Amino acid sequence: MATITRVEDPADPRVDDFRDLTTADRRPDRPGGRGLVIAEGVVVVRRMIDSPYPVRSLLGVPRRFDELAGDLAALPVPAYATDAETMAAVVGFHLNRGVLAVADRAAPPDVTELLRHARLVAVLEGVNDHENLGALFRNAAALGVDAVLLGPRCSDPLYRRSVRVSMGHVLRVPFAELPGPWPASLDLLRAAGLRVAALTPATDAQPLASAALGGQRVAVLLGAEGPGLTPEALAAADLRVRIPMASGVDSLNVATAAAVAFHALTPPP
Amino acid sequence: MATITRVEDPADPRVDDFRDLTTADRRPDRPGGRGLVIAEGVVVVRRMIDSPYPVRSLLGVPRRFDELAGDLAALPVPAYATDAETMAAVVGFHLNRGVLAVADRAAPPDVTELLRHARLVAVLEGVNDHENLGALFRNAAALGVDAVLLGPRCSDPLYRRSVRVSMGHVLRVPFAELPGPWPASLDLLRAAGLRVAALTPATDAQPLASAALGGQRVAVLLGAEGPGLTPEALAAADLRVRIPMASGVDSLNVATAAAVAFHALTPPP
Repeated sequence: MATITRVEDPADPRVDDFRDLTTADRRPDRPGGRGLVIAEGVVVVRRMIDSPYPVRSLLGVPRRFDELAGDLAALPVPAYATDAETMAAVVGFHLNRGVLAVADRAAPPDVTELLRHARLVAVLEGVNDHENLGALFRNAAALGVDAVLLGPRCSDPLYRRSVRVSMGHVLRVPFAELPGPWPASLDLLRAAGLRVAALTPATDAQPLASAALGGQRVAVLLGAEGPGLTPEALAAADLRVRIPMASGVDSLNVATAAAVAFHALTPPP
Repeated sequence: MATITRVEDPADPRVDDFRDLTTADRRPDRPGGRGLVIAEGVVVVRRMIDSPYPVRSLLGVPRRFDELAGDLAALPVPAYATDAETMAAVVGFHLNRGVLAVADRAAPPDVTELLRHARLVAVLEGVNDHENLGALFRNAAALGVDAVLLGPRCSDPLYRRSVRVSMGHVLRVPFAELPGPWPASLDLLRAAGLRVAALTPATDAQPLASAALGGQRVAVLLGAEGPGLTPEALAAADLRVRIPMASGVDSLNVATAAAVAFHALTPPP
């Protein structure tokens, strides 16, 4: 089981994985950093422990380790216990959630393998807001999306804030970069037997509710809030679908629009 | 048109409506306060100007007033122009959005009148998180909800953070407290010809997609994320509907679940 070790000195090198999480150039989850994945809070730490991401260590206040006792029982990694102030000194800010875990990245899944049996897939273009991306993964997990594929200009789903906003579901929903030149790479989805449906506010797109997709396996193509999908991506889709929207209203948040589409396009079991 | 007046002194009493917005006991949008409504940023200020809420005054940096010139043209209220630092000293924090408007509350609409022609209504029980409430109003506006009715233990939709998260749509979607003892007050909806559908994760509820509501006017009953609807509210509904959810996943965010339900339950035109 996890060995709980007391840490008193914020400079202790054993907690270096958790150091200065807000300072971009030292933050391990940024390009150029060490590529580690950070989970915050009991719920997300628990999901990380249950995920394919290999946990390296934990840092937290004793009360949170008590809550996680069952999860730590079979986990052969160090857990560093400290007080809230020392923890804040290490991390660089005061952490309400009281516990962190750090994991190495896992190898991305093979896209062809991932698509073989997938019934509902999300494909993202330019979703570069970490919170929207995290919320989208949370909704994908809840609504039975089998995989998320990243097209160009997406944020890193394993960035700390995405992990947190996703409630840890980015560690649970398989995702990978879609290989090959965009948007020709969408052919990979068609080759796997999926219909590519682009979500767009364009008024000449089919309303989601009447999209004739009955029973078909679907890849939902989603662009960023604001700019939306590029014309190239829209042209490469098999069909264009829209959420009927009241006039004079900005588009929905991309994660919310995704949830509506995931629900509407889920093939029947 | 709005008179643009330069303000140099943060203590100037003419900008008292905007003073110390984060300090609860002086904040005008809290019970015991003055009950004013605050809009932040060009988009939301614009929606406030277009709303039934009577604008009292504006405070902002000149660049934002330039952007709002068209909106201010017909608005006979003072606009106080200042620099970002003076504005921060008045408000109590640095405001990225650079412009605020303050309005009096408007009389709530008459519920019976509101329901007479409403085709899709949201009824909330215990939605007491200001951000969720704001997001819910944004989704209600986008998805054609005609009215939001507040049952017990809901937050004030006109609280500053709700207004902001709603992108100003709380000023646009009619809302009112549902009068009478809860949940017997739901009879008012039935009397108006609406079917009351409670959204719940209970596995024996009908999946949204197969809820036999074809063409009927619907009131969607929504509870808070976490506790959900009370047994009393569930029992008072005409039917219970659910969003099919993957196992092992927390419920969706209440505003997201609401969006999925609003889309699925919108009667055809």
